[in-house]
Amino acid sequence: MTETGPAGQHTVRRHNCALVLDAVAQSPGISRAGIAARTGLTKATVSSLVDRLLAAALLHDEGPQQRAGPGRRGTSLSLSPHGPHGLGVEIAVDYVATCLVDLTGAVHDLRIRHGDNRGQPVDLVLDKVTRAIAAARRRATRRGVAVGGIGVAVPGLVESDTGLLRVAPNLDWHGVDLPARLRRRTGPPGRDVIVGNEANLAALAELSAMGEGGPRDFVHVSAEIGIGAGIVLDGELHEGSRGFGGELGHFPVDPRGPRCRCGARGCLERLAGQEAILGSANATDLEELIQRLRDDDRAAKDAVERAATALGAALSAAVNLLDIPAIVLGGTYARLHTWLAEPLLTELRTRVVSAPWSRIEVLPSSLGTEAAVRGAAASVVRTIVADPEAFMSG
Amino acid sequence: MTETGPAGQHTVRRHNCALVLDAVAQSPGISRAGIAARTGLTKATVSSLVDRLLAAALLHDEGPQQRAGPGRRGTSLSLSPHGPHGLGVEIAVDYVATCLVDLTGAVHDLRIRHGDNRGQPVDLVLDKVTRAIAAARRRATRRGVAVGGIGVAVPGLVESDTGLLRVAPNLDWHGVDLPARLRRRTGPPGRDVIVGNEANLAALAELSAMGEGGPRDFVHVSAEIGIGAGIVLDGELHEGSRGFGGELGHFPVDPRGPRCRCGARGCLERLAGQEAILGSANATDLEELIQRLRDDDRAAKDAVERAATALGAALSAAVNLLDIPAIVLGGTYARLHTWLAEPLLTELRTRVVSAPWSRIEVLPSSLGTEAAVRGAAASVVRTIVADPEAFMSG
Repeated sequence: MTETGPAGQHTVRRHNCALVLDAVAQSPGISRAGIAARTGLTKATVSSLVDRLLAAALLHDEGPQQRAGPGRRGTSLSLSPHGPHGLGVEIAVDYVATCLVDLTGAVHDLRIRHGDNRGQPVDLVLDKVTRAIAAARRRATRRGVAVGGIGVAVPGLVESDTGLLRVAPNLDWHGVDLPARLRRRTGPPGRDVIVGNEANLAALAELSAMGEGGPRDFVHVSAEIGIGAGIVLDGELHEGSRGFGGELGHFPVDPRGPRCRCGARGCLERLAGQEAILGSANATDLEELIQRLRDDDRAAKDAVERAATALGAALSAAVNLLDIPAIVLGGTYARLHTWLAEPLLTELRTRVVSAPWSRIEVLPSSLGTEAAVRGAAASVVRTIVADPEAFMSG
Repeated sequence: MTETGPAGQHTVRRHNCALVLDAVAQSPGISRAGIAARTGLTKATVSSLVDRLLAAALLHDEGPQQRAGPGRRGTSLSLSPHGPHGLGVEIAVDYVATCLVDLTGAVHDLRIRHGDNRGQPVDLVLDKVTRAIAAARRRATRRGVAVGGIGVAVPGLVESDTGLLRVAPNLDWHGVDLPARLRRRTGPPGRDVIVGNEANLAALAELSAMGEGGPRDFVHVSAEIGIGAGIVLDGELHEGSRGFGGELGHFPVDPRGPRCRCGARGCLERLAGQEAILGSANATDLEELIQRLRDDDRAAKDAVERAATALGAALSAAVNLLDIPAIVLGGTYARLHTWLAEPLLTELRTRVVSAPWSRIEVLPSSLGTEAAVRGAAASVVRTIVADPEAFMSG
C-alpha cells in the first residue's frame, strides 16, 4: 500500500492507521504483536504503520515490556507526550483562556487573561484571542512540540456542521464565522480550527477526567455569566442533530420572575446565574461570597439556596425527561458545591417523579472553570487520534 | 450444529437464526441466496435455518421471486402474517384496550373497553384485564394463530429490568409486580409478560408507523388523564438507564399555579391535561369540545390555547436541552392537533433558543390513542424477531 495507490488502498491505510493508534490509546504499553492480535491486522502491516506513527511522533516507544512469563518481549508503545498538542482557547464573557493538551490528555500551560468581553466589537476580542493563541504557540515551540490544531470554546449556539457561531447572547455576538475569521488571523495551524459550545466541551472534558469509574450518564451544568449544560448519555455527549443541545439558561422557572435579556420572564439564568447569586447576596465577587459562606453568613447562604431551588426546578425537568442519575456541577457551581449540593438534592428529591426508587448524585466537577478550555484542546486531540493519516499528510 | 451440541454451537445457531430473520425483516421478498450474501453465512446454513423458521411459521414462502434479468430465481421469503402474534394490552385510567399484532406489524382485533379504573382495587382491574386477554386469545385461536406473548402498557413508572410498576399516580397503584401477577392469572402464553410505560410504548409504535420517511429524533407527547412523553433520539427510544425517562406531566409550568396531586403547584398535567382542558372549556367530554372547536367557539379555543402555552413551555425545555426537531402529538392531543399546533409552535418559536436557525415541526400522530396498545403488542413481536430461537424452543 503506497501513497500513490488507488483510492481504495489509501482509504484502507487511513482506516488501519486509525485502528492502530486507537488500540494504543485503549491499551497504553501494548506491543506490536498485541496490536496485531487486537486489530486483526498482520504483524507486517502493524509494524509498518507503527514505524510511520513513531516517525510522526504520534507514538512513543518505551522499550521492552515489563511482564512475567516466557516468550519474546515486545516493546511497549504509548501515545507520545511529545507529539502534536491541541491548542485550546475559551472565549468567555469575562476572560480568555488558553492551554495545550498532549495526545495522552495531559494539560500544559493553562493561562487565563481576565477582562470583560461583553459588548466589545468582535474584532477587538479576536485581537486578544489571536495574541493569546500566538503566546500559546510560542510556549509550544519552547516545549519543542507541534500544535496540531486549535479548538475554540464559546458561550453560544454553534452549528456543529459548520462551526458557525449563530449567537452568543452574553457577548452580544450574532452570526460570526469564527473558523474562517480565526483561520485568517492565525494561519494554518497544521490542522483546522474547531469551534464548539463551551458547555458541551466542558462536559466532554469532565467525562474523560472522571474516566472509567465515573458516571456514564450525567448532566454537566456550569454557571459563569450564563448557564450552560452538556448532556452525556451512555458515555457520549448528546449535543443534538444540529449541535444546539444543552441549553438550560432560559429554562422557564417562574413566569412572574424578573425579565430576562431574552424577553421572557424568570429564566434560570436570571435566578441562578453567577450575577444573580452575587446580586442577591449583595457580594461584589465570588471570592467575597465564598468567604461569607465559610463564615456562615445568612444572606450569602440564602442567596445560594434560592439559586439551588431554581436550578433544582430546571434539572428535575431534565432528570424526569431523561432518567439521568448524576448531576455534575461545573464552573462557578463547582466552587459552590459545598453549599449548593444539599438544597439542590432536596429540590430534586421533591420534583423527580422516580426519586423514591432511584439514586441521584450531585458531584462537583474536578476541573471547575478549566473544563471548557481543556475540552476545546482535547477536541483537537480527538480528531488527530480518530484520523492520524489526515494529520500526518495534512 | 445440533440442539445437543456444546453451548458454543447453540449460541452460534441462536445468533445466526436471528441474523436470518432480521435479514428477511429488513428486505421482505429476499431469497435464500440473498440472505446468504447479506449475512455472510453459507447457503447450506441459511437453508437449514430458513426451513426451521418456515416450520415454526415465523417465515412465509411466497413462491418464485418476481424479478428481471438472467439466473435462477429464488423463492421470495417474508415474515409470516400467520406466525405468532403479539397480544397487546393497555391499562389506561379510563379504559382497557387489547389488540393483536402479527410479525409484519399489521394490527388485528383492536378492542377498547371503556370504564373508569381510578381508585379501583388492583385485583378488580386485573380481573377485567384477564378477561380482555382471554377474549383476545380466543380471537387469535379463531384466526388460527398462536399468541407469542403478552405486552402490557401502563400509565406509570416501570422499572425496565424487572417490569415492576413502581407507581401509576392516576390509577393510585403503588409497587405492583404486574409481570408476576398477570403470569399467574393468564398462564404461560408461549413467552413472557412484558410490561412498559404507555408513553414509551406509544412512541415506539409511532416510530415504526412513520417508517423510514419520518423523523428520527422526536418527542412523542400524549395526554389522556395524565401526560406522558417518549423521547426518540437517532431512531431509538431513550427511556433512561432505569426506564423512568419521558416524564413530562409534572413539569413545573407555574409555581403559583393550581395544586397538583403530586403536592407541587402548576404541574403541566394540571394545566394541559385532558381534564384541565375540558374543565377550562366547560365541556363534558372530548366529543363536545371538538364539536365546539369546529364551531369556532371562543371558550373552547381559549382553553386549547392556554393548554398549548403550558405545553409549549415544557416542550421548549425539552427541545432546548436535546435539540430535537420534531414534536409528535399523540393520544388526545392528536385529535386536537388542528387547534393545538399553531399556538404550540408560536410558544416554541419564542422559547427555543435555536429557533431562528432550526426548523421545528409539530406533527399529529397517525395512531392517536391506539399507539400505546399497538406498541405493547409490537414489543412482543420485537423480542420474537430479536431471538427467534428462544421463541421456537420456549
